[in-house]
Amino acid sequence: MSIITIVGAGMMGSAMCFPASDNGHIIRLVGTPYDKEVIQRIKQDNFHPKLGMPLPPNTTAFFYEELDEALKGCNLLVAGVPSFGVDWFAENVLSRIPDDLVVLSITKGLEDEPDGTLVPISLAYNKYKLAPGRHLSINSIGGPCISLELCNRLHTSVALCGDNSDTLHWIKSQLITTYYHIQPTSDVIGIECAVAMKNAYAVGVSLAIGLAQQTGSTLSNPQASLFGQAVREMLRLVHLLGGQTDSVIYATSDLYVTINSGRNRKLGEALGSGLTLQQALEKFPGVTLESIPIITRAARALRKRHELGTCNFNKFPLLRHLDEIINLGAPVHIPWNEFG
Amino acid sequence: MSIITIVGAGMMGSAMCFPASDNGHIIRLVGTPYDKEVIQRIKQDNFHPKLGMPLPPNTTAFFYEELDEALKGCNLLVAGVPSFGVDWFAENVLSRIPDDLVVLSITKGLEDEPDGTLVPISLAYNKYKLAPGRHLSINSIGGPCISLELCNRLHTSVALCGDNSDTLHWIKSQLITTYYHIQPTSDVIGIECAVAMKNAYAVGVSLAIGLAQQTGSTLSNPQASLFGQAVREMLRLVHLLGGQTDSVIYATSDLYVTINSGRNRKLGEALGSGLTLQQALEKFPGVTLESIPIITRAARALRKRHELGTCNFNKFPLLRHLDEIINLGAPVHIPWNEFG
Repeated sequence: MSIITIVGAGMMGSAMCFPASDNGHIIRLVGTPYDKEVIQRIKQDNFHPKLGMPLPPNTTAFFYEELDEALKGCNLLVAGVPSFGVDWFAENVLSRIPDDLVVLSITKGLEDEPDGTLVPISLAYNKYKLAPGRHLSINSIGGPCISLELCNRLHTSVALCGDNSDTLHWIKSQLITTYYHIQPTSDVIGIECAVAMKNAYAVGVSLAIGLAQQTGSTLSNPQASLFGQAVREMLRLVHLLGGQTDSVIYATSDLYVTINSGRNRKLGEALGSGLTLQQALEKFPGVTLESIPIITRAARALRKRHELGTCNFNKFPLLRHLDEIINLGAPVHIPWNEFG
Repeated sequence: MSIITIVGAGMMGSAMCFPASDNGHIIRLVGTPYDKEVIQRIKQDNFHPKLGMPLPPNTTAFFYEELDEALKGCNLLVAGVPSFGVDWFAENVLSRIPDDLVVLSITKGLEDEPDGTLVPISLAYNKYKLAPGRHLSINSIGGPCISLELCNRLHTSVALCGDNSDTLHWIKSQLITTYYHIQPTSDVIGIECAVAMKNAYAVGVSLAIGLAQQTGSTLSNPQASLFGQAVREMLRLVHLLGGQTDSVIYATSDLYVTINSGRNRKLGEALGSGLTLQQALEKFPGVTLESIPIITRAARALRKRHELGTCNFNKFPLLRHLDEIINLGAPVHIPWNEFG
């Protein structure tokens, strides 16, 4: 039995309580300053208002102000913050933990550097966000997982990546259940890059859904053409960064799920139907769209590499067009002929 | 302007009339003996009863008995028969054409040999089905294409494979339009194997849809887990046969479309909901399910290779389970823990 502290009481962070609880661990779910009301409610009657269900046995909620208490004696720290919360997490949480506490990040994202390097979140912590000289074991999990389905204990297959095989197998042993299937891999850059990019490409594939609404037609062939191009570009990007083909499979199935639902699909649909980005965003007030920074950063990095002669940005026509739509206000005009 | 003769007046063969007609060719659509009524109706008022629309300009219908006339002076022969029609096509059509007539096959399928070799249709023609000493240029097309959407001139991206680059580029020039996007590739085994296997795996992924109906739950995570495993196994099989990763991308997007509709999805759904194969088949009287021979042959070939020590069939747990369901009457019991 371990003590698992999860920081971030959003949907996905909170969903991790379920496999952890089914392993008999003590779980401490700590809210960020944004999660005050959620934590208040859980403390009252154990009901998670966003998940719409009670939390599983052995789970205790903590306000952010109670973080020190929640970290006491903990064996595994789960970073359950969205990508815009990683600086906050580094400053306010990672700064307080010992170097030997294993961290598991569920955040999806990429940061880009001036030379076109793309850095996934788990590596960015050690690279920029910790005090000089510190090094933590930051592992991450990625793959197709709708949080509510994990809470309902439906079969879910994810990849777990990090640089130490023993650590990965230990984390797996803490969280594996009959329904939560965890595949360890050392391909950190491949998994994190691919699962971050799928949010970008979910917008791309969903453009066809909006276009079909405009014309009243069905949409399978165009959507499949976009889906294929999305997989092709994810594979190309992952290979460019030194990652492996196998890792892209997790992103492919994640893309498949994301297009069937989710906010990034709705954004693509709205853009495809002829709305400008501004008009589309007005339809989703207060919603975080992880796709927008991902598209922006990946396109910026690849454009830079293209200038430096280290990649051919023309091999990413769908990403380039998404960037033009999002950042240059271009109308949707899918470059079908450039696909391949 | 060329003369294009299409043999097989089913949905997909007939849909090929549209890009051909938009290129200004003369098109001769020849029915098989099964297509008598369809051809009768087209001859009457140019309306294709299965497509539910008139055929495009410059298209003339021919009964099978008029085949010789339809082949006269033709520049490209399209084989538009289903996989169970390939022997008929070889005996009755290919036997009558000159060796220098270019053939384009749209049939999806695989044949297996006693030593576990898997042979795609276009190669099987030259290998077994022609008179000794004959060799034809048989090329094939594969990728996500719902025939009615092609008729409606929606954007469609497919791969065109064959062993001669000049021939491929000539075929492409005959059929390419602003909406029909054709990518030539020399990876015959990769494209044909992958697009045949996607019919098998569409059944596999759709098991989750039926399982969810049984429990009344949602299904994204299990379906995504199956989708990922399907892609993984298609990739493994294509690599085993010497094909390329890029070719599997066409099958991945084809799988994506097939799960959203189509008869193989309905079979998987029925099996997943608890019906036996026999009960499931009774729900689709008279419907050809290409998935059943594909599952059977691919599993038989891999099992044989496993015995011979040339592959590890345990790396194909989803295909193995599909074979158990289809050929041994096993109940659905997805081997989630073996995925990866």
